[in-house]
Amino acid sequence: MNFENYIAAIPDYPTEGVLFRDVTPLLQDGEAFKAVCEKFIEFAKQNGAEVIVGPESRGFIFGCPVAYELGIGFVPARKPHKLPRETVSYEYALEYGTNTMEMHKDAIKPGQKVLVIDDLLATGGTIEAANKLIESLGGEVVGCAFLIELEDLKGRERLQNYNVYSLIKY
Amino acid sequence: MNFENYIAAIPDYPTEGVLFRDVTPLLQDGEAFKAVCEKFIEFAKQNGAEVIVGPESRGFIFGCPVAYELGIGFVPARKPHKLPRETVSYEYALEYGTNTMEMHKDAIKPGQKVLVIDDLLATGGTIEAANKLIESLGGEVVGCAFLIELEDLKGRERLQNYNVYSLIKY
Repeated sequence: MNFENYIAAIPDYPTEGVLFRDVTPLLQDGEAFKAVCEKFIEFAKQNGAEVIVGPESRGFIFGCPVAYELGIGFVPARKPHKLPRETVSYEYALEYGTNTMEMHKDAIKPGQKVLVIDDLLATGGTIEAANKLIESLGGEVVGCAFLIELEDLKGRERLQNYNVYSLIKY
Repeated sequence: MNFENYIAAIPDYPTEGVLFRDVTPLLQDGEAFKAVCEKFIEFAKQNGAEVIVGPESRGFIFGCPVAYELGIGFVPARKPHKLPRETVSYEYALEYGTNTMEMHKDAIKPGQKVLVIDDLLATGGTIEAANKLIESLGGEVVGCAFLIELEDLKGRERLQNYNVYSLIKY
C-alpha cells in the first residue's frame, strides 16, 4: 500500500511558507489506518517493546492501537499542566522560545523497553524530549517510529543514537 | 476485571473542589487497557459502527484502537485551528464562556453510522457538540461510549436521544 496517497499537502499552514502534511485522510480510511498500525506493531515486536510512549496528541492516534494489539501499556507524553500526578518534565528549544514536555513519574519502570510513536519526525525536538524523560525514569528507548519523516529537517541526525523508523519520507 | 481499580482520584485538580478522575494508571496497564478497548469494540460491533469519532485528545486514546481493530476510519474532533482543511464547527456553552469543536467537512459520509468514544462523560457538552457536527455532515450517531460517567453531572440526560454506554459510574 502506498501510504503517501493518503497524506494531504496543505500549503502555507499553519504559517506562510510551510507545507503541512495532513494525516487525517489516512485516518479516515480504515484499511490504510490499519495497515500503518500493523507496520508499527511489527516494528514494536522486532524491538521487544514493553510499553509505548506517544507525544500529545497525534502520537496517541498511532501509539494506542499498537499498545492495544500487543497488550502492553500506553504512556502519554503531554504539554505542561495536563497530567494530574507527579511528573518529570523536560524543556527543549524551538526556533523561537521553548516547549516543555511532561510524563508521569511512575509511567516507566526501570529497565523497561520503550517504543516512542508519533505521526511525524521534523527537527526531532519533541522526540528527543520524550526520550530524555524516558531515560530519566530508567527506561530504554528501543525505537522511535513515525508515519512521516521530513528529511530536510534532519531529525534523524538529532536522534542518531536511536533506532529511527519511518514509513514515508519527504 | 474491575476497571475502577485502575482509575486514580486526584483531589482539587485542575481547580479546588474538583475530584479529577485520572485514567493514566489504566493506560499504563496493558491488560486493563486492552480489556477496556475490547468492551468498546463489542459495543461498536453491536451498533454497526462504520467510523469512530474521538474528541481531542483522550478520545483519541480509546477511539483509535477500536477503529484499528474493526478496520474502520477514525475521525478526530478537535479544538479550533488544529485541523488544516475545510471544517465544520460548533460552539457550546461552558459554565463560564464557550468552547468550539471542529471536524473536517469530508470526515463523515452521509448515512454513515458513527460511534463517538471518549474517556469521560461529564456534562455532555463536548459530546453534544461532536454529535451535532456528525449530524450536520449527514452521519448517524449510533452510540456514545465512555470509560467513565460522572452521574451527578447529568450528561446522560443531555444525551437522552442517544445510545449512551459507560464502563464506570461515579
